[in-house]
Amino acid sequence: VTEDQHEELTLDRIQAAAGRLAGVAHRTPLLTSRTLDAIVGAPVLLKAEMFQRGGSFKFRGAYNRLSQLTAAERASGVVAYSSGNHGGAVALAAKLLGIRALVVSPATGSAAKLAAIEEYGAELHRYDPATQRREEVAAALAEAQGLTTIRPFDDYEVMAGQGTAGLELSAQAGQGGPELVLLPVGGGGLAAGVSTAVKALHPAADVIGVEPAGADDTRRSLRAGHRVTIEDPATIADGLRSQQPGLHTFPINAKLLADIVTVDEESIVAAMRFALTRLKIVVEPSGAVPLAALLSGAVRAAGRRTVVVLSGGNVDPVVLASLLQGRAVSDLYTETPSAR
Amino acid sequence: VTEDQHEELTLDRIQAAAGRLAGVAHRTPLLTSRTLDAIVGAPVLLKAEMFQRGGSFKFRGAYNRLSQLTAAERASGVVAYSSGNHGGAVALAAKLLGIRALVVSPATGSAAKLAAIEEYGAELHRYDPATQRREEVAAALAEAQGLTTIRPFDDYEVMAGQGTAGLELSAQAGQGGPELVLLPVGGGGLAAGVSTAVKALHPAADVIGVEPAGADDTRRSLRAGHRVTIEDPATIADGLRSQQPGLHTFPINAKLLADIVTVDEESIVAAMRFALTRLKIVVEPSGAVPLAALLSGAVRAAGRRTVVVLSGGNVDPVVLASLLQGRAVSDLYTETPSAR
Repeated sequence: VTEDQHEELTLDRIQAAAGRLAGVAHRTPLLTSRTLDAIVGAPVLLKAEMFQRGGSFKFRGAYNRLSQLTAAERASGVVAYSSGNHGGAVALAAKLLGIRALVVSPATGSAAKLAAIEEYGAELHRYDPATQRREEVAAALAEAQGLTTIRPFDDYEVMAGQGTAGLELSAQAGQGGPELVLLPVGGGGLAAGVSTAVKALHPAADVIGVEPAGADDTRRSLRAGHRVTIEDPATIADGLRSQQPGLHTFPINAKLLADIVTVDEESIVAAMRFALTRLKIVVEPSGAVPLAALLSGAVRAAGRRTVVVLSGGNVDPVVLASLLQGRAVSDLYTETPSAR
Repeated sequence: VTEDQHEELTLDRIQAAAGRLAGVAHRTPLLTSRTLDAIVGAPVLLKAEMFQRGGSFKFRGAYNRLSQLTAAERASGVVAYSSGNHGGAVALAAKLLGIRALVVSPATGSAAKLAAIEEYGAELHRYDPATQRREEVAAALAEAQGLTTIRPFDDYEVMAGQGTAGLELSAQAGQGGPELVLLPVGGGGLAAGVSTAVKALHPAADVIGVEPAGADDTRRSLRAGHRVTIEDPATIADGLRSQQPGLHTFPINAKLLADIVTVDEESIVAAMRFALTRLKIVVEPSGAVPLAALLSGAVRAAGRRTVVVLSGGNVDPVVLASLLQGRAVSDLYTETPSAR
């Protein structure tokens, strides 16, 4: 990653990404709920990225990155490593651009998410997570076949694309813009992109990242002042099981985030249930994490115009059914959905 | 009901209802899906009444009716008979207007829906559906306590309120308006209200009603030319288990609906699953019925700008979990959710 150390993430770059995404990505709505406002004691606006193409914000970054490949890179194709939304987003973006895509996925991955990747026309390359590291599998394939690796977050064009959600919510929040923005933090791409856009447009707004308590690598890293690795992130929020913040995302988030808070697993499930039963929307565990911070009281928003980024809605129907039935959270996240 | 036989449902009356609902009811969005458009071969616009206050279109009619009570009627209170969305809607409207509400519900009703009615502050009056008729229970209470009965559909002000969904979708469908509108038919209030608005504004549009095959009282009645009663309507679409069309709704629907089609139970469940997994929204069985007509091919919409009224999103989490797990439909609709 040495070659792009001089790069930086700017509002201009995010605006350029928005131009590439215009007419391709959805401008997702901000949803509101009187019930939620009453609970929180503030006007809450929910950025509904489950309505984004591919079902999550990931499409924004993947398409922005892929649309800038050279003709030679397009002709050779791309490789991504992901068992989830990034894989689906790269597959969809590649399909729209007529680029061959190969997605490296664990053999134990969610059957539903892997099926979505194949439905978008990407080739799946399975590996055994017990004996292989996905980065190495992808690197070997890239080397052998001349593919460009599309990293899930630690890439300025991916961050810029993801930051377009921040441009949109800033404009949609109405006069004065957002006063508080809550978003989930995994590798930190969404947080870096959105916080760059929001802080450039509304410097007084606070952007707060939320992590599952069992996958709080960014919170620990911010406290330590450098990137810390956690060995075994454990959470149902499968999109947030990062072991450490990104090399490029971390300094941006260290500078721009007002705070990182954590939520427990029960709060995440409660937020998903609230979304289903009261808001009538499907939010995946990772997407429910910032809503959990509001509902559990981990973040106090009283009186502040608050935007919550619901980052996606791709959840295995079997997992969704389990949590609706009130199964223990520990059963949910140790379960391998593909084994059903 | 003799006293209002001279009444009629007009565009003016629906527009007056819209004025009363302005700032109180939500103007629900029309959602779109590229996936759905591709399957249907037409631009499909989904009127998202699951986002309405109380979780269904019923609030529109209940509030319009209650807001026109006389001071004396307001002081005495209202009674409604319903185990579902109408009960919740009357409870919510009464709460907003400061009116006492009593809801007559079967002792075997959905625990989730009964809890919602109580949460809105209404008093529940349970009856035994095996030995009592709800209309008679409600009439006795109304007589004894001087309450005004709020009928679920066979009331011109309820129909007018429900018709505001038709005003909105006509305006939201864009230039030229809708060419085809699909909506669920239970007692026929939504169909009468929406078809009156749509046909007045866009006479060339076709409004098609959709019923579950096991609860097709309106289809049979239209064929017979008079109101037909079916003994035991059987469907998971609990909002559409009407035994016969309304006295006042039927002539309107007989005149304005282009057709009535039916869908089977498997199609309804498939439509709910499609909504959850692809659209990321929660649609209750009754609300999924018109979507089922499109997805199953019961209605051909190819090339026509089509609006589908997704009438509500109130579904017991236990039922939702069951259908996500692919349980047999027959198990679902014979089950009494409150027995869990």
